[in-house]
Amino acid sequence: MEIKDILKSVENGNLSADEALLKLKMQPFVDIGYAKLDTQRKLRQGVSEIIYGEGKTAEQILGILDAMAENGQERVLITRLSREKYERIAEVCELNYSKEAHLAVKGEKPVPDGLGKILVLTGGTSDIPVAEEAALTAEMLGNDVVRLYDVGVAGLHRLLSHLDIIMNASVIIAVAGMEGALASVAGGLADCPVIAVPTSVGYGSAFEGMTALLAMLNSCASNVSVVNIDNGFGAGFQASRINHMEVRK
Amino acid sequence: MEIKDILKSVENGNLSADEALLKLKMQPFVDIGYAKLDTQRKLRQGVSEIIYGEGKTAEQILGILDAMAENGQERVLITRLSREKYERIAEVCELNYSKEAHLAVKGEKPVPDGLGKILVLTGGTSDIPVAEEAALTAEMLGNDVVRLYDVGVAGLHRLLSHLDIIMNASVIIAVAGMEGALASVAGGLADCPVIAVPTSVGYGSAFEGMTALLAMLNSCASNVSVVNIDNGFGAGFQASRINHMEVRK
Amino acid sequence: MEIKDILKSVENGNLSADEALLKLKMQPFVDIGYAKLDTQRKLRQGVSEIIYGEGKTAEQILGILDAMAENGQERVLITRLSREKYERIAEVCELNYSKEAHLAVKGEKPVPDGLGKILVLTGGTSDIPVAEEAALTAEMLGNDVVRLYDVGVAGLHRLLSHLDIIMNASVIIAVAGMEGALASVAGGLADCPVIAVPTSVGYGSAFEGMTALLAMLNSCASNVSVVNIDNGFGAGFQASRINHMEVRK
Amino acid sequence: MEIKDILKSVENGNLSADEALLKLKMQPFVDIGYAKLDTQRKLRQGVSEIIYGEGKTAEQILGILDAMAENGQERVLITRLSREKYERIAEVCELNYSKEAHLAVKGEKPVPDGLGKILVLTGGTSDIPVAEEAALTAEMLGNDVVRLYDVGVAGLHRLLSHLDIIMNASVIIAVAGMEGALASVAGGLADCPVIAVPTSVGYGSAFEGMTALLAMLNSCASNVSVVNIDNGFGAGFQASRINHMEVRK
Amino acid sequence: MEIKDILKSVENGNLSADEALLKLKMQPFVDIGYAKLDTQRKLRQGVSEIIYGEGKTAEQILGILDAMAENGQERVLITRLSREKYERIAEVCELNYSKEAHLAVKGEKPVPDGLGKILVLTGGTSDIPVAEEAALTAEMLGNDVVRLYDVGVAGLHRLLSHLDIIMNASVIIAVAGMEGALASVAGGLADCPVIAVPTSVGYGSAFEGMTALLAMLNSCASNVSVVNIDNGFGAGFQASRINHMEVRK
Amino acid sequence: MEIKDILKSVENGNLSADEALLKLKMQPFVDIGYAKLDTQRKLRQGVSEIIYGEGKTAEQILGILDAMAENGQERVLITRLSREKYERIAEVCELNYSKEAHLAVKGEKPVPDGLGKILVLTGGTSDIPVAEEAALTAEMLGNDVVRLYDVGVAGLHRLLSHLDIIMNASVIIAVAGMEGALASVAGGLADCPVIAVPTSVGYGSAFEGMTALLAMLNSCASNVSVVNIDNGFGAGFQASRINHMEVRK
Amino acid sequence: MEIKDILKSVENGNLSADEALLKLKMQPFVDIGYAKLDTQRKLRQGVSEIIYGEGKTAEQILGILDAMAENGQERVLITRLSREKYERIAEVCELNYSKEAHLAVKGEKPVPDGLGKILVLTGGTSDIPVAEEAALTAEMLGNDVVRLYDVGVAGLHRLLSHLDIIMNASVIIAVAGMEGALASVAGGLADCPVIAVPTSVGYGSAFEGMTALLAMLNSCASNVSVVNIDNGFGAGFQASRINHMEVRK
Amino acid sequence: MEIKDILKSVENGNLSADEALLKLKMQPFVDIGYAKLDTQRKLRQGVSEIIYGEGKTAEQILGILDAMAENGQERVLITRLSREKYERIAEVCELNYSKEAHLAVKGEKPVPDGLGKILVLTGGTSDIPVAEEAALTAEMLGNDVVRLYDVGVAGLHRLLSHLDIIMNASVIIAVAGMEGALASVAGGLADCPVIAVPTSVGYGSAFEGMTALLAMLNSCASNVSVVNIDNGFGAGFQASRINHMEVRK
Repeated sequence: MEIKDILKSVENGNLSADEALLKLKMQPFVDIGYAKLDTQRKLRQGVSEIIYGEGKTAEQILGILDAMAENGQERVLITRLSREKYERIAEVCELNYSKEAHLAVKGEKPVPDGLGKILVLTGGTSDIPVAEEAALTAEMLGNDVVRLYDVGVAGLHRLLSHLDIIMNASVIIAVAGMEGALASVAGGLADCPVIAVPTSVGYGSAFEGMTALLAMLNSCASNVSVVNIDNGFGAGFQASRINHMEVRK
Repeated sequence: MEIKDILKSVENGNLSADEALLKLKMQPFVDIGYAKLDTQRKLRQGVSEIIYGEGKTAEQILGILDAMAENGQERVLITRLSREKYERIAEVCELNYSKEAHLAVKGEKPVPDGLGKILVLTGGTSDIPVAEEAALTAEMLGNDVVRLYDVGVAGLHRLLSHLDIIMNASVIIAVAGMEGALASVAGGLADCPVIAVPTSVGYGSAFEGMTALLAMLNSCASNVSVVNIDNGFGAGFQASRINHMEVRK
Repeated sequence: MEIKDILKSVENGNLSADEALLKLKMQPFVDIGYAKLDTQRKLRQGVSEIIYGEGKTAEQILGILDAMAENGQERVLITRLSREKYERIAEVCELNYSKEAHLAVKGEKPVPDGLGKILVLTGGTSDIPVAEEAALTAEMLGNDVVRLYDVGVAGLHRLLSHLDIIMNASVIIAVAGMEGALASVAGGLADCPVIAVPTSVGYGSAFEGMTALLAMLNSCASNVSVVNIDNGFGAGFQASRINHMEVRK
Repeated sequence: MEIKDILKSVENGNLSADEALLKLKMQPFVDIGYAKLDTQRKLRQGVSEIIYGEGKTAEQILGILDAMAENGQERVLITRLSREKYERIAEVCELNYSKEAHLAVKGEKPVPDGLGKILVLTGGTSDIPVAEEAALTAEMLGNDVVRLYDVGVAGLHRLLSHLDIIMNASVIIAVAGMEGALASVAGGLADCPVIAVPTSVGYGSAFEGMTALLAMLNSCASNVSVVNIDNGFGAGFQASRINHMEVRK
Repeated sequence: MEIKDILKSVENGNLSADEALLKLKMQPFVDIGYAKLDTQRKLRQGVSEIIYGEGKTAEQILGILDAMAENGQERVLITRLSREKYERIAEVCELNYSKEAHLAVKGEKPVPDGLGKILVLTGGTSDIPVAEEAALTAEMLGNDVVRLYDVGVAGLHRLLSHLDIIMNASVIIAVAGMEGALASVAGGLADCPVIAVPTSVGYGSAFEGMTALLAMLNSCASNVSVVNIDNGFGAGFQASRINHMEVRK
Repeated sequence: MEIKDILKSVENGNLSADEALLKLKMQPFVDIGYAKLDTQRKLRQGVSEIIYGEGKTAEQILGILDAMAENGQERVLITRLSREKYERIAEVCELNYSKEAHLAVKGEKPVPDGLGKILVLTGGTSDIPVAEEAALTAEMLGNDVVRLYDVGVAGLHRLLSHLDIIMNASVIIAVAGMEGALASVAGGLADCPVIAVPTSVGYGSAFEGMTALLAMLNSCASNVSVVNIDNGFGAGFQASRINHMEVRK
Repeated sequence: MEIKDILKSVENGNLSADEALLKLKMQPFVDIGYAKLDTQRKLRQGVSEIIYGEGKTAEQILGILDAMAENGQERVLITRLSREKYERIAEVCELNYSKEAHLAVKGEKPVPDGLGKILVLTGGTSDIPVAEEAALTAEMLGNDVVRLYDVGVAGLHRLLSHLDIIMNASVIIAVAGMEGALASVAGGLADCPVIAVPTSVGYGSAFEGMTALLAMLNSCASNVSVVNIDNGFGAGFQASRINHMEVRK
Repeated sequence: MEIKDILKSVENGNLSADEALLKLKMQPFVDIGYAKLDTQRKLRQGVSEIIYGEGKTAEQILGILDAMAENGQERVLITRLSREKYERIAEVCELNYSKEAHLAVKGEKPVPDGLGKILVLTGGTSDIPVAEEAALTAEMLGNDVVRLYDVGVAGLHRLLSHLDIIMNASVIIAVAGMEGALASVAGGLADCPVIAVPTSVGYGSAFEGMTALLAMLNSCASNVSVVNIDNGFGAGFQASRINHMEVRK
């Protein structure tokens, strides 16, 4: 029952002021103005379709999947899901699992409806799990994703030989560990927004991704913004938002 | 002279292969394939209209302004420009100067042509200089900017009383120092991309913006990406990119 | 106009449902349920009587003082106020200024009405400015404050010779730089809550208060909680809250 | 034998000055004035009822439990107790064990006798073990505890829909990892003291709780003080102290 | 087909301008000028002979070895190769494995052809695995390597009794953990370039090699440059480059 | 009045038990057993002869000097004394001032009475101010001090050519910035205790002395212990203690 | 053959100048002047009797023990020795093993011959392994050691009730984790040198001993110097040196 | 008098063994074998021609210049020399001063005699002072230096358009602040050794050069080694050593 309906009922004499006040108080917060926001968010962001698997038991995840199914949401992405949990869930519920990205998908990928392509780059092969988390997230949120892996800056020709793909991307997700220079170079070559994802790849003074993170934050390219270390999901999510921009006057 | 024209001239016998090779070598890099990228970038990003003022003398800046004027670029943004340098430049060249944002503008702001509005939020009044750098940058790049300052999370009602503005934004720039919680709260309330700008506002364990930076990188909202401490320009630039997204198939 | 009054007006036919909806939307957030919180906070916390002086001009502070005076608030505490700003404000408005604590007071200190005494300890004489910020803040919020300065742990007898004062305190504010051991020792001796304030006093690996902060957070005494480096105001404020606890069922 | 009794014995001629001096020296420190403090502390703080389980063997803990039982203390809280140790102790001595909080309780919870309720908030579900350590500690020390879990700031409505509980709390314990913004938001909404507990929940630049810790120390709300990362026990202990404040003139 | 050949073909009328343009675009990047660089690099640096084993499966490594063999490269160095992977590869392909340095070699070591000897020093015995990675890398790249292990500065006579070897070295690789002083002392004694390799040997405030790294970067000797913590391979590679310097006018 | 005298008075009937109790409570801590410690400390450590000048006004220092003079202490060391303060004090009271070490001395240096010589080493000339603070402190506390400056490890022969002095020292104070290797080398050469003092000399990743501090803490020599960055006074004080060791059974 | 003997042989005509030069060069460094130092060090420091067990195999340790036995050294201390290695060595060679301190002793403890007693303090029970490493090291180097464990500053009476022991110590080793305040309090109470050993005991912002280390370095007591985190051996060694000081003119 | 001469004199009976021993002890270290090293170092490294100006007075520098002139060294480089000091020295002694690099040169630059050219790259214009310190140092040590400034990776075409210069360099010095990616890109493009110099250019999380330093240490190119932040001199010195490599068998 919407706030306007409550007010109408008072106007109509079907509800006393006191009863209305009680109703307003009893309703969840979302019902007194902010609910729309929440509902809107669910519908548009696809947030309701994502389960953060870490720190949840297989049973809890199954429970959430059931609740979602009851609400008609058959397309679900489960991130940071260990193989063990996946296997227990898969006994009950059909899932596609990426053991690389530790990520499971229920239902089919949606038809891409974004403005263009999201390009996912990695510096090396060790960055691929994080990149796959980003790519699969973006695909589940309705994006056409192009993968270009192992194109680190020490062999610049690998990157330069794909300039057309870089130039044509709508959003770029640059995934790199070690010195994280890929974000700056990609940012300089492309004219689209770049989301940089530092990874914990490297050793010694790579400091579990801190060096790549700092380097990316200090990129001399202006079209680069950064997410947390190894946060492939966040990068895929933000890139999808950007790839689904629309006129909002 | 474009690469295709060079080839045509060889085809037409107006140029020998050797002369063509020389021409290709003598031309700047942009002329052998990457120039398009560069030119495109200039035209679309407005990068050529921005001068990073720090570490350049007033004379150098005047020289660049002259060169730009000769190339027909009359609309220029100069960031990180001290008052002293501004005053020396202003003797020769008409500028609008924001002493808050340490930023000067030559020429008129362009008519906004983005998808929607860019909303700039600050946690406190001390964050305003960085916010203004972001806002003025975005305006100079053709964006309609809405400012909502001093809406930090310790007084949540200040933020909540402007929910409609937040819900309606195309991109949000969240500028905050201290604990930087504004980015998370804004990210949770809005469904658009949020660019978080940590500021060096605070004392003690605020560590010149490091605390805000780390907090923003660890935002529990998924639609937040982050730029360097006090990097208002970068946030305005990236937000403008996002606000000018278009179909790119 | 309260939400209940709005509903009554609809019930009475003095307001249509649409007009009521508009009214609800137009009112500041505080008017739809959260205002009480805000008003309550003002009345009880004395927050409205405190101006954070840093980053505000003398003119802005005078403006706020005027607005406060119009609302009947004559008792005001201004923290982090430089001498220069104080002197400009003092030309117009009578203030008591502590040049040590960089803090000005308008109006008289209130009569203490707390549960007991707040004891402010410092490790050395260099910690006194921060301690005074805490002490004066607590006094302006209605507390009886006892000062015991320069009782650092390297001369334990200085502290032990005042055991009765320590044992009798309602709340203790322990202000110390360098190794910050005062908080642990005070926490071990007393049975009341201890608010620890690390200061930026020290050199070298004191790291501007970081060492004292970390030491205080790792106190082996369980009745110690910590505020930011040099945050005398926060400690005084929190201690006052604790000293004004009352039955709330 | 109290110091006064010793002096009386000298006065009565039952003890020579030299014998008295010897007695004073031979007695443990607590017997020459500071013992009262210690005894008082035991009686009032319930400290004697708490065993820090980490680094103690099951046998050592059983020994302490025996000694406590002999002194009539049947109500004991054992923190940081691994499941293995618990199981060995449970063969001999009846305990209630929380496997979530790694905490065991011997005897019944006392009847709450505090000023009001202690509210324990968490940002996410992964913060619950630390929150339970805080909640169970507070309950064992005689407090009425309300739990409100998974109310992180990215979904602000979850927090706002429980405003009445927040407004009515006597003390709030805000438990959060990642960016730790919950402490600031709770501090802004409530007028009671907030004890913030950063947790090691998060990854990458969460730095095992460091980011949440720094954010909480820099809270823009003034009624927030902080304890060590994952220190649920300390927060419960300090909150209990505050909730048991009484007149002490 | 080289760019000049393409141009010649246009000149000869064997290729139209449009066809030439297409050819230029279709060729990999290396074919429009930068390929030489790449080929040259392979031939001269021996980079193509090195496989970084970490993060690659035994199968992937075997695949690369096959591809290399087809290209005639029989001499291959595989770094950071775990014993398990080595054993699986060794079933198919003959390798010499150093279990200390986690490094495998296929084919014979080349005959040294450098300017002089590379001297590898270690501070202690625990630094030897990193030193061996450096030494074996250098040997596989055609260098004569002298090992001088366990000559840390706390027993200076160990180092001084080998002064002739130190004075005669072409390049020195100084491998040390803890306080990393070996690099400074070696740099002061020798007149050749010193490549310093901090190791993660040590405990407590050695911070996994950070202390040695910082100390080496701050060496008071001017002929010291530094590589990442535990990066024996990088040191051996760079030393080999220096030991193979030649006239390049 | 000593505790024994109080007890005697009770024995003699000159004091009632209650009066005695009051007396005990009223006396400073030092009178109930711990005073001896304090007095002893003053007499033996010479602590009472040292004033830490930083954070004290010239007037306060003069006041302390007067009080000391009244107690018969004519020999006083004032550390961290700025030239300005020195000059104001010198108008009233005769002092010898070291502008290098920012340290003033009142009265004559005592005749050395230690076990042997304290040797003060520095790595470079920039470390001399800290070294002089150490040396002058040690001299004022009754030690024979030998200075050996600018003997950093990059020119090892400078150190080795003074081996006899190093071998003969009773205690060594090793003062160095940058990579701080001097402490390890001196520790390895000498058989006496070495007190290492890191200095803030250096730039970049010297991090204001942090690198030298960490290096010294990780010294591979076992006879090295460390004080705070630039803490020449502490090193001189501790060295003097060690140089004045005596039989204590 | 000593350097003087070589020269005598030349004088006697038994050796030519060239032969002498060769002999000098062939001899180990220690034979041309610096050998005495080394030999002296062995004899006086007992360094030769200590084996650092970490990073050495059981076989290597047995080899060293054999070599030592051949040189007549029957009294040996092996530090950082895992239980597994101990057991393998114990099959061949009789050792006393402390499983707490991970330290084995061959032969009897020597009769103490120091100036006085070394007092080892710990803040808690978890610090005991490090303390035992210090205590056993000191005992093996000929010192009388007194242990006083679990006397942390949160229960000050535990420390104060042993003031006589503290006052009477020749050297104090203060072993503590968490906030490390024990070093400052001990340093203030005692007049002898204090060697502070931070331990990695604690959690969260204890940062594996970093907090205790920093706190100890910033001790407000002047007679405190510090060794590396968990470096019980170094503290015992340095304390022994100090406790064996003698006249050296 | 060389050690061999001493021995000869004993052989000849011109010196007794005792006198010889005394002579050996009285001579500076350099005379018993290590002096050669030192002399050699002076002759070959040109170290004696360099004065580190920081922390030395103008008078001290003039004194050193005089001493050098007496020894026939007319070509001197003075680094880190402030303008003020330069001007005072220039009154007496003719110098060429670079106010950019804070570096003065006495005498003419030597004729280059290296293997090839040293190429100095900078990422931006703000890095030029450090680059000039490197370039001028290298020139004074006899190298042909090519400067290529402002070729940062965000505009890759600037770097790529000079590929021939990069490919032809003997040694590259890559000078960059911010994210320091220039080192990796240059290392990937070139086949010669790259000396990376991080600069303190940047703001916020550039952390005064720390970010660039870490990025450079983690370069994915293997031919990169690193010197301290802003250490242009060290880079120029090390590059010169490498550029003067010669056969040393």
